[in-house]
Amino acid sequence: MGDGKPDPRILGYLSSAGEDAEIIRYDILGSQAHVLMLLRAGLISRMSAHRILGALSEIMRRRRSLFARNGSTYGGKDAGGTAEDIHEMVESLVVERAGAAHGGRMHAARSRNDQVALDIRMKVRDDINAMCGHILDAAESMILLASNHRRTVMPLYTHMQQAQAGLFSHWLLAHADALLRDYERLSGAYGRVNKSPLGAGPVGGTSLPIDRAYTAELLGFDGILENSLDATGTRDFAAEYAAAVSIMMSNLSRLAEDVVVWSTSEFSFVELEDDISSPSSAMPQKKNPDVLEITRARAAEAAGYTSAMLGIVGGLASGYGRDLQRTKPLLWMVSDAGVSALLAVQSVLGGMRVNKARMRRVAEASDLVALDVAERLVLEHDVPFRTAHGTAALLVQHARAIGRPIRKMTAGDIRSALRKGGAANVKPSSYSAASDPKILNTITSSLGPVSSLRDRVSRGSSGYAEQRRMISARKRTVTRFRSVLEERKTRIDGALTSLKKQIKSV
Amino acid sequence: MGDGKPDPRILGYLSSAGEDAEIIRYDILGSQAHVLMLLRAGLISRMSAHRILGALSEIMRRRRSLFARNGSTYGGKDAGGTAEDIHEMVESLVVERAGAAHGGRMHAARSRNDQVALDIRMKVRDDINAMCGHILDAAESMILLASNHRRTVMPLYTHMQQAQAGLFSHWLLAHADALLRDYERLSGAYGRVNKSPLGAGPVGGTSLPIDRAYTAELLGFDGILENSLDATGTRDFAAEYAAAVSIMMSNLSRLAEDVVVWSTSEFSFVELEDDISSPSSAMPQKKNPDVLEITRARAAEAAGYTSAMLGIVGGLASGYGRDLQRTKPLLWMVSDAGVSALLAVQSVLGGMRVNKARMRRVAEASDLVALDVAERLVLEHDVPFRTAHGTAALLVQHARAIGRPIRKMTAGDIRSALRKGGAANVKPSSYSAASDPKILNTITSSLGPVSSLRDRVSRGSSGYAEQRRMISARKRTVTRFRSVLEERKTRIDGALTSLKKQIKSV
Amino acid sequence: MGDGKPDPRILGYLSSAGEDAEIIRYDILGSQAHVLMLLRAGLISRMSAHRILGALSEIMRRRRSLFARNGSTYGGKDAGGTAEDIHEMVESLVVERAGAAHGGRMHAARSRNDQVALDIRMKVRDDINAMCGHILDAAESMILLASNHRRTVMPLYTHMQQAQAGLFSHWLLAHADALLRDYERLSGAYGRVNKSPLGAGPVGGTSLPIDRAYTAELLGFDGILENSLDATGTRDFAAEYAAAVSIMMSNLSRLAEDVVVWSTSEFSFVELEDDISSPSSAMPQKKNPDVLEITRARAAEAAGYTSAMLGIVGGLASGYGRDLQRTKPLLWMVSDAGVSALLAVQSVLGGMRVNKARMRRVAEASDLVALDVAERLVLEHDVPFRTAHGTAALLVQHARAIGRPIRKMTAGDIRSALRKGGAANVKPSSYSAASDPKILNTITSSLGPVSSLRDRVSRGSSGYAEQRRMISARKRTVTRFRSVLEERKTRIDGALTSLKKQIKSV
Amino acid sequence: MGDGKPDPRILGYLSSAGEDAEIIRYDILGSQAHVLMLLRAGLISRMSAHRILGALSEIMRRRRSLFARNGSTYGGKDAGGTAEDIHEMVESLVVERAGAAHGGRMHAARSRNDQVALDIRMKVRDDINAMCGHILDAAESMILLASNHRRTVMPLYTHMQQAQAGLFSHWLLAHADALLRDYERLSGAYGRVNKSPLGAGPVGGTSLPIDRAYTAELLGFDGILENSLDATGTRDFAAEYAAAVSIMMSNLSRLAEDVVVWSTSEFSFVELEDDISSPSSAMPQKKNPDVLEITRARAAEAAGYTSAMLGIVGGLASGYGRDLQRTKPLLWMVSDAGVSALLAVQSVLGGMRVNKARMRRVAEASDLVALDVAERLVLEHDVPFRTAHGTAALLVQHARAIGRPIRKMTAGDIRSALRKGGAANVKPSSYSAASDPKILNTITSSLGPVSSLRDRVSRGSSGYAEQRRMISARKRTVTRFRSVLEERKTRIDGALTSLKKQIKSV
Repeated sequence: MGDGKPDPRILGYLSSAGEDAEIIRYDILGSQAHVLMLLRAGLISRMSAHRILGALSEIMRRRRSLFARNGSTYGGKDAGGTAEDIHEMVESLVVERAGAAHGGRMHAARSRNDQVALDIRMKVRDDINAMCGHILDAAESMILLASNHRRTVMPLYTHMQQAQAGLFSHWLLAHADALLRDYERLSGAYGRVNKSPLGAGPVGGTSLPIDRAYTAELLGFDGILENSLDATGTRDFAAEYAAAVSIMMSNLSRLAEDVVVWSTSEFSFVELEDDISSPSSAMPQKKNPDVLEITRARAAEAAGYTSAMLGIVGGLASGYGRDLQRTKPLLWMVSDAGVSALLAVQSVLGGMRVNKARMRRVAEASDLVALDVAERLVLEHDVPFRTAHGTAALLVQHARAIGRPIRKMTAGDIRSALRKGGAANVKPSSYSAASDPKILNTITSSLGPVSSLRDRVSRGSSGYAEQRRMISARKRTVTRFRSVLEERKTRIDGALTSLKKQIKSV
Repeated sequence: MGDGKPDPRILGYLSSAGEDAEIIRYDILGSQAHVLMLLRAGLISRMSAHRILGALSEIMRRRRSLFARNGSTYGGKDAGGTAEDIHEMVESLVVERAGAAHGGRMHAARSRNDQVALDIRMKVRDDINAMCGHILDAAESMILLASNHRRTVMPLYTHMQQAQAGLFSHWLLAHADALLRDYERLSGAYGRVNKSPLGAGPVGGTSLPIDRAYTAELLGFDGILENSLDATGTRDFAAEYAAAVSIMMSNLSRLAEDVVVWSTSEFSFVELEDDISSPSSAMPQKKNPDVLEITRARAAEAAGYTSAMLGIVGGLASGYGRDLQRTKPLLWMVSDAGVSALLAVQSVLGGMRVNKARMRRVAEASDLVALDVAERLVLEHDVPFRTAHGTAALLVQHARAIGRPIRKMTAGDIRSALRKGGAANVKPSSYSAASDPKILNTITSSLGPVSSLRDRVSRGSSGYAEQRRMISARKRTVTRFRSVLEERKTRIDGALTSLKKQIKSV
Repeated sequence: MGDGKPDPRILGYLSSAGEDAEIIRYDILGSQAHVLMLLRAGLISRMSAHRILGALSEIMRRRRSLFARNGSTYGGKDAGGTAEDIHEMVESLVVERAGAAHGGRMHAARSRNDQVALDIRMKVRDDINAMCGHILDAAESMILLASNHRRTVMPLYTHMQQAQAGLFSHWLLAHADALLRDYERLSGAYGRVNKSPLGAGPVGGTSLPIDRAYTAELLGFDGILENSLDATGTRDFAAEYAAAVSIMMSNLSRLAEDVVVWSTSEFSFVELEDDISSPSSAMPQKKNPDVLEITRARAAEAAGYTSAMLGIVGGLASGYGRDLQRTKPLLWMVSDAGVSALLAVQSVLGGMRVNKARMRRVAEASDLVALDVAERLVLEHDVPFRTAHGTAALLVQHARAIGRPIRKMTAGDIRSALRKGGAANVKPSSYSAASDPKILNTITSSLGPVSSLRDRVSRGSSGYAEQRRMISARKRTVTRFRSVLEERKTRIDGALTSLKKQIKSV
Repeated sequence: MGDGKPDPRILGYLSSAGEDAEIIRYDILGSQAHVLMLLRAGLISRMSAHRILGALSEIMRRRRSLFARNGSTYGGKDAGGTAEDIHEMVESLVVERAGAAHGGRMHAARSRNDQVALDIRMKVRDDINAMCGHILDAAESMILLASNHRRTVMPLYTHMQQAQAGLFSHWLLAHADALLRDYERLSGAYGRVNKSPLGAGPVGGTSLPIDRAYTAELLGFDGILENSLDATGTRDFAAEYAAAVSIMMSNLSRLAEDVVVWSTSEFSFVELEDDISSPSSAMPQKKNPDVLEITRARAAEAAGYTSAMLGIVGGLASGYGRDLQRTKPLLWMVSDAGVSALLAVQSVLGGMRVNKARMRRVAEASDLVALDVAERLVLEHDVPFRTAHGTAALLVQHARAIGRPIRKMTAGDIRSALRKGGAANVKPSSYSAASDPKILNTITSSLGPVSSLRDRVSRGSSGYAEQRRMISARKRTVTRFRSVLEERKTRIDGALTSLKKQIKSV
């Protein structure tokens, strides 16, 4: 240093070229709206507007090649380029095409600080809408798949231990419900993202008589982010978006964990399609659940990116700081992780073979009806739950000891179980039913996963009846959410179409 | 191990005693509602309900001492206690008081998995409401303070460098606006938190004919979280809450960073009250901004807790896992950090002395009007902004070189500046105004922070006019938000009062 | 505020009372050494030293009750207490007992900034040594257990898919090796922790003629942390310690994940002891792996705490800032998580029943020998590995199709497999052996997990031979590490004993 | 899905193409060593070795273009490519060139699991060495700069408040010391990274008679990572590396924070070079400390990446899982962040103008000598420190009240100060000196930053004398560290040179 030649490595350090490719389109759109507003406010002539908008349209068309040529020179004009970042690059391209006398008027009443905030918000709102679309697709595919599995019996797990009989559709619907919450969470974030910062200037606004509401409307925003210090300096919306995606991914990661475990030989509940599982370079017998493993990993990544973003933002003084530049690549990585994980999960579910027979066999071999035994005692014999639970526990323990499922126990087995319980100082209940081998035998022999699922009628339970109801309800929800999402997208598209029209008219 | 005596350190490891003190009240309320529902559903007799509710009321009254006595024995009955966690503890206290024939009926149709999810949701919804209240208090105090500082001129900063003239009220309003978004974000989370999981059972529901909507209503929920697997296993709401608080704290941390810097001798913009700054044990001359430093630190902590929460949740299979127990202490720490930081910031702002004269002096000594010069050229002399900006830059550079603020430059100084610019190969504009020393002198000599702030009229700018408008608008927003919050709280209070009444009637 | 009464909530916010209970002993030790040094340096009289040391000894003896009485009043003298933190509390207790004329001399040549750094370093070095001891215990118990399981055949997994035959001892030794690295990592950190900051003053040292090396020696440090700005302001050692514990916990978390999966009904490889697994409140048949689940959760927590610590430290200017206070509770939580997880894992492994028969059955039913088939072709028939791998793949696919393990295939089966491969356009090798059903049959029928493990002789492989060698090597490593650890502890104990002696002599 | 055509987006999801460009060289080196070993072990013929090594050498030469052509087709052969990842790509290129009869023998006795672990370790060890080199460069440049600033007086800060007089060299040395610890920390990590996993096979080793020690030696490793399950599955070394870099960056971030604050107009301690500060697009008067802001941001990023890595690893079962693939891009990002931050900081320090006069003026205008006053009373007049501190506090308060620095107070001022103290119920000491205006006046008038720094002689203090000693000591340390580093690099280079030779001889 010192000889005036900046170290190219330092220029690379400062450069945002890597991440700006993602926002060049938004940057140009923002400039177009800004110019239309300047014209309407009388701050530039129709001729200047005409020339600038002409240049911008050409740059928009050729943006990819222009960026490829100029983007790499970010970081310093000495490096041979003419721009330090995307905003300056576009402006200098405009000046080049429209001449300084016209192009030099474009940057009035704004700064890179409100401009970059604008670009990021436009990108994030589109990312949210895309993500929401993929969420609804994924949820819908789960719900449709659930329709086909409303009678696919399987064990439900807590602590990864078999707990109660359930249906595969119930598992699918649980994950669909989580996704629908993710949709809502992202939609909440959308409301806070879709406010225009344009016109906030570097930090304190401008003395030029601009119309911020007008540019906001031209660009499809739901309003402006008023306070100019806030509008240029805050990235809370970015952290919120990242956090919402991280939460969604933690939901997908749990789904992935389930399927990874289920696709082990030991579980053999599902078999993944060849396309998305990888063979082993050394062990030909294997089929690895790679897509799901990557999904888990990317969930951890998204959380790390969110943490990085909070770290960047939390340490700053108010107002724009260059630190904020680094929220951009983090945001893009978050979007990429989220969208691709949603696609990956859909593809896994769409292609996997569900081993219904195996699931059912496991469900039947287990003591998943223990709770049902207790509840039957409560319901039909007025036994206090805690007593009934104790009796069921005795039966389970004895069933394990003699290597037989509860529902295959004989009255004699039950008698032994109760006696042992007594010996073990667990008093068989004074409630006759809970200590009556015959009654108990009637109950146990009549219970199995299927009867259990028929009896399970509580709201939201994994019983047969609830599946049907929940499936249609969720279908309606997806439809409703889709129309809200379409409206959001239509509003933006409409604004941008009208923007285009106005540009043409100039 | 192996001799049947569990290692007390392992018991401590498993125990949730430390965090359960926070939810015992909610646990009892949940049991009360559950019992009323069981009665109405005909699952227990009026006598049993009477006995259980009697016991619960007593336990509620004496909960603190009961917890103190029994809470520490969590982790194993062998340790002399009778309960493994808060849920079992309350149940065993009920059985003790109401007898097994009655008390033993309380746990029918539920499990600890839906119970603990219920308790956490009730605690978090109260925490959200409390946090929202403190947010509105803090925002309001900022807005009120802003009213007093609508004419307190100061520099606004970007990159911590003086950028434009501004008003202290503008800074306050920026932070108030951030807090109002935090309020909205937490309110969004509230909608997802305030759903009842009660009745979801361990994972798959129950065969007993319960009424989940009824318990939800009794406890003031806005509905039920249907899918039983989802209801017991998800903690996405917890991660969302933690993330929202972390984002809020990153906003407060930025405020803290500003004030820490402003309270340095070098800035001397503000002086903190003695109460909340600490003297030095070694250096008697100092007054440290401790409260603000702690606020920054706690923001980093909250982010770390959120990260921990995502880490816990993302690695899990579906359904309840004991891992989730550890989300509780993290949640309580998050709540504590958030509420105390809000109080701390209010107290700092309330007690700090604002050094208006110093702020103004700094604002006047700086070249904060450079942008105004450029904009005046644009507005009054039709100079392209980029050209005007170049001219202003020449003036600033020369002003620095001769050690004088722009607005004190003579026409001669300006001429030299323009000449130097020419020499430096920066063409003074062909636009006459931009290279006319007289015109420029008229502009520069007429500009200062005050005129700049008078001219700054763009929406949301830091000019005088906008402050007044924004202050009244924000006051209205606070009032509106407060009434929404009150409604939320009233709904819960109303439900709990009616719960109490129904208990009495049994 | 403003009426001079500080808000008690703010006082609590500032207070470090919660975490200072952990360091009061170190604070007193540090003061004792400091006083001895002041005496030797001629900065206080023998009489003053005598009085102060007398007071300190008494405070040391009664520290728990004194802290209980005074610790809660931290945060402001107005709250009725006399101290703002542990350092001031101890000083004021000394002044109370020894009189201001003597006690008032104790704080010369130091500040709270070097004092708190000292206290934390003394606590962390003890925590590291304790953690290292528990690591060696855990590693040793794994190695001993491995001796008993040198012939316990099981499948080894990659992607949770069965991959190769292995031995349970191999799994245990893998985790022991990871722990031994954790030991080394923490020992590296120890070297950076065990440097004395005492005497660095508030930030820039002192003009009093102190002897920093002497206090360092008295307190068992391996030297001083010289630069006074660095010594008071850095907490890199704290972040390093937290990171090292987090890495250790991620290792333990993987072990926990394995055992959780193995204790499912579907795997049934191990059964956990009743003490450390929890029964279900609703489902009597279950036995949950709670200790392991908590271990996974605490690993995520430790990572979150580390992240919080980096967040706190990274945002600070140089020199002590009150932000650093919050590293203390994070450190204590990290230590607690690490030690208890090590104990938990030991207790799980010590008490769990290993289902050898089941492990072996699964190993035998699988195609774990596919790679061995390929390697036999390479070794005995000079077939290129890639070709051999292809052949083995054909056999596996056909074996699956006909529902039989490879080693039970007949020559006819093998012929069909090769034909199918040809049809599927996977050319059976021109290498005769790789396409010779008889040769292949000889190989496949002779291979099984046991032969595979006999043949597996590469360094560090899971074969029989390597287990014995690795077990003895690891035992020696544990012994060696233990003696290093003992030396470290002895050095500290020796220093503190000699400190005590010198105190008595005054 | 289902039609056999994999979704290209899923292929991209699975692909490691993005990150593998970084390790292709290591992958080829690993294969070369592996082939030499296979030859020596008699597992392949000299002819095969000759053909394979020939192919590998060509691939090494043309690796960039080959990767560019083939790398993008990762993820599935159907996509037109021939490889799923870098390992398969290289193998298939070898087979293409050397023929299946020879090239097909290369992958014997290894798997992609040990191979990728090998590649990452080779890359990370080189990254560590490069980073260590940059650390020493940065530390050295700080030390050299310190030599020039051994008399540059400035205030030292705690809580960002002026605390004691200091020297700019002291600040530089503090940061150099932190970097030297970072060097040590990374060197500790190096020891754990530089172990060869090659030959561990997929998870359990191989039955082929390989020689792992030999490949380790050929590749310059310090030994092998024995246990095959551990060797293929662990990434603790990656997390350790990431954590060490994060800690280093938190140290650099603190330096950056200092300089950002110092380059404000209000501080004006330093002025950054134009190259590395950015002008404002809107405000011509500004010069922003962008490089430093980016450094802070990247420190937060590195911490987030570390957190992500712990999240990925902690959730896994033992053995290789595809999740681990995602540690690669995180590692590369960590390396990039670390190296570029070190360069950036050097460039900032090298180019910045230190405003000595301003620093000194601020130091002199402050009450930085308050502690010196107290210490003088202790040292020369036997006043207890606490009493002396109280007196100094009185003087400071009064000095502030009358707007004059302590050292310019008259005896009369001092008298007033003492009286006021009495009134405020802070007893002026009975120790005559502490309440004797004349003595106090003698002390205060003789003290200033310069005298203070002359008197400051304690080890590691910011006094003049210590700077010289510390500078030479640190220079020696840098030299010593450099030679250790050179040795490490020479060992690797030597091994690789000898590898090349052996390849030629075949």
